[in-house]
Amino acid sequence: MQRLTRLPGLAAFSPRRGYATVKDLNAPLAQKFKINGDRLWNDIHETAKFSEPNETTAAGGLSRLSATTYDKMARDWFAEQIAALKPTYYGVNATGSQFATFGGLDSSIPPIAMGSHLDSVSTGGRFDGPLGVLGGLEVVRSMKEQGIKTKAPIALINWTNEEGARFFPFLASSAAYAGRSTVDEIQQSQANNGSDETLGDSLKAIGYVGDGPNTFQEFPISAHFEIHVEQARSLEKAGKAIGWVEGWQGINYYEVTFRGEDGHANTYPMYGRRDAMLGTAKLITSLEELAYSNHGYSTVVGLFTGPVGCCNIQSKTKIIFCLMNQQQAALDAMDEHMTANANKIAELYGLDVEVNKTLTLEPGKFWPEAVDCVKRACGDKGMGADTHTAHDSTMTRLLVPTGMVFARGKDGVSHNAKEWTTKEDCAEGVLALGKAVLNFDALKFG
Amino acid sequence: MQRLTRLPGLAAFSPRRGYATVKDLNAPLAQKFKINGDRLWNDIHETAKFSEPNETTAAGGLSRLSATTYDKMARDWFAEQIAALKPTYYGVNATGSQFATFGGLDSSIPPIAMGSHLDSVSTGGRFDGPLGVLGGLEVVRSMKEQGIKTKAPIALINWTNEEGARFFPFLASSAAYAGRSTVDEIQQSQANNGSDETLGDSLKAIGYVGDGPNTFQEFPISAHFEIHVEQARSLEKAGKAIGWVEGWQGINYYEVTFRGEDGHANTYPMYGRRDAMLGTAKLITSLEELAYSNHGYSTVVGLFTGPVGCCNIQSKTKIIFCLMNQQQAALDAMDEHMTANANKIAELYGLDVEVNKTLTLEPGKFWPEAVDCVKRACGDKGMGADTHTAHDSTMTRLLVPTGMVFARGKDGVSHNAKEWTTKEDCAEGVLALGKAVLNFDALKFG
Repeated sequence: MQRLTRLPGLAAFSPRRGYATVKDLNAPLAQKFKINGDRLWNDIHETAKFSEPNETTAAGGLSRLSATTYDKMARDWFAEQIAALKPTYYGVNATGSQFATFGGLDSSIPPIAMGSHLDSVSTGGRFDGPLGVLGGLEVVRSMKEQGIKTKAPIALINWTNEEGARFFPFLASSAAYAGRSTVDEIQQSQANNGSDETLGDSLKAIGYVGDGPNTFQEFPISAHFEIHVEQARSLEKAGKAIGWVEGWQGINYYEVTFRGEDGHANTYPMYGRRDAMLGTAKLITSLEELAYSNHGYSTVVGLFTGPVGCCNIQSKTKIIFCLMNQQQAALDAMDEHMTANANKIAELYGLDVEVNKTLTLEPGKFWPEAVDCVKRACGDKGMGADTHTAHDSTMTRLLVPTGMVFARGKDGVSHNAKEWTTKEDCAEGVLALGKAVLNFDALKFG
Repeated sequence: MQRLTRLPGLAAFSPRRGYATVKDLNAPLAQKFKINGDRLWNDIHETAKFSEPNETTAAGGLSRLSATTYDKMARDWFAEQIAALKPTYYGVNATGSQFATFGGLDSSIPPIAMGSHLDSVSTGGRFDGPLGVLGGLEVVRSMKEQGIKTKAPIALINWTNEEGARFFPFLASSAAYAGRSTVDEIQQSQANNGSDETLGDSLKAIGYVGDGPNTFQEFPISAHFEIHVEQARSLEKAGKAIGWVEGWQGINYYEVTFRGEDGHANTYPMYGRRDAMLGTAKLITSLEELAYSNHGYSTVVGLFTGPVGCCNIQSKTKIIFCLMNQQQAALDAMDEHMTANANKIAELYGLDVEVNKTLTLEPGKFWPEAVDCVKRACGDKGMGADTHTAHDSTMTRLLVPTGMVFARGKDGVSHNAKEWTTKEDCAEGVLALGKAVLNFDALKFG
């Protein structure tokens, strides 16, 4: 199979001349594998009812913040589906992730995992996250129905708090699994709304702190595959239903706090103020410019300011934002420019400034052998693409061969009730997910 | 006394030639009136202990938000002091204001009131508010000790929620008293921190919803005098300890809400976003320019944004801010420019915008006859000044002759733990407050 690795894109870029058939480069079991697109589609929309009743849910989206009662409903449903499939192992770990294993021909081999997340952002769509978990479930069901036995066991994982929407940071449980964080740190994840809640307490409250495996050492896997909606427009523009994900862009998260001086909002002269809000507004404006001039992205995702009241110059304002770039050098440049600018603004407004980089993810590439398994699984339905964000797979790739399948999204819209992927594209993607797993099994253990 | 009204500033601007004595233009009782500056100073600092333990309190400031347990402590203390002075009436009204009356020679005359507020902003100083209430208390005590009997009764008032720091709007109870609002509206005042608390519920919780008089009709007064720290630098620059307040600047409060589109913070392209936070930052930046170019003031006092999370383009951002100007025409121009700019920004960023003017106060002048009573009380220690904000007196002046005394502040600093007025200036100011009351009594009822 090394030949294929050295000839990337062979399947996808084969010339198609009318009646010519593209050669199927999948492993034998993968070639005949099928999934049930109706059942998958039904699961996606049936489980979407586990969602907080609000504007997003009313608009057909998903509002299932991690460790809420809605998350519990989805988790309970998932556990029931697993139980019906008679797993060889099922457990919940200390950060709430659900693990299930289904026996292969050789139980001494660490399982090939399919994982993603059932949580969503507060204003999410039905696909970001759930498609990955429900897709994995569909693959296991179909394999069982079709009597397909892999050499390695298969694992299904619902990773806790991938989104970080309720508690920061994101990729929570998978980061602890990969040794990038600890169970303690993840349990102590702080609420983005400024409340005292922690992820650990909230998981406990819904009964999802278990004694299952927390780390790769405790639950080794052979590989990790994930299907996700693209959240960008490359597949849509190229007219491709699915894609193999080659890499991800770099992401830095920051908290920048400006501290000024308390003062009366009505009476204190404009000149001589130390207004933290004004400095913050200047920085936010500059972040937009920074993104365009570095061919990157920037987004302010939160702002906290005080004193609370109606008559105070704001003396402490904190913004939380992220900078993104495909190139590490450009991301570093953005980091430098932003920091210099924050300091310049602080000088200009007589403020103190504190710049904290709270999370950093370097751009990178998934494992070539895993990407190749996905590429062959996609065949001419697919193309190569990059993700612009982080996924649980971005953590597992620190440990084992990891690959991702993209399903085409509509208009690049995600984290929005309008996020959409067609039934056909979901089915194509999940089929590719199953084929990728079978390709990997054949490649490594066949 | 009409002659004096037509010759404003006579006392203050009399030439002082060495041994020459400035003629005392105060009423006879006012000429011999004294106050106890030590007792006043002691009250200011003793009552400053009724303050939430936090950074501001630790720094020597005052953090006594309306209708908190700390406010209750100050109210209880004030009620005790009043009781010791044997008032002819004491009552608490439905919006929590405390009223006390002390008999004059003619109980058929509505009392001459001295009022201000015991609440502070969360990051306040020891003088803004308390000096007015404690100053009034000191005047009543001293009159009693010196056997000074006014013709009209004297009233002392602690107006509830002057600051609006915990619940919007400010000048709460005095606005209801003046018919600018209603008891219901004031009780329903909403929390600035976005919680469900209301002023009415919070007052009830501390036992300060009473059946006392709510309106001018229920508790008529003849006049209202108030001492306050200047909160600007005009007295300090001129080397004057105190001042008579001639007028106030115009103030508009606004809530501007931008609504955009939910989206993924990491993946959605910069171009084509509808980012409410970016639009808000642009508007904030423009407000600074607006203040300078119109010789006015502008201050953002709060910002709320969502969705909460770490990975969402902000689709709804609301800012609360105020625009101030001494001239109504210039304030109107600022209003127009701001609204046009908010609309322009909305177009530029593809946002919807809603501009709500939540409060408006036209600039104006206090009653000449009351100002003149204060001016004579100040003598050559004082000068004329304008306030740049609103006070409870800004409400009572809608009803009756109203005048204010300013005590010199340090560096124009207010709504800050560092707010400071010397013991001597406090004493001079409170002496002038008492003399102004006596001057008014002589002018109207003597």
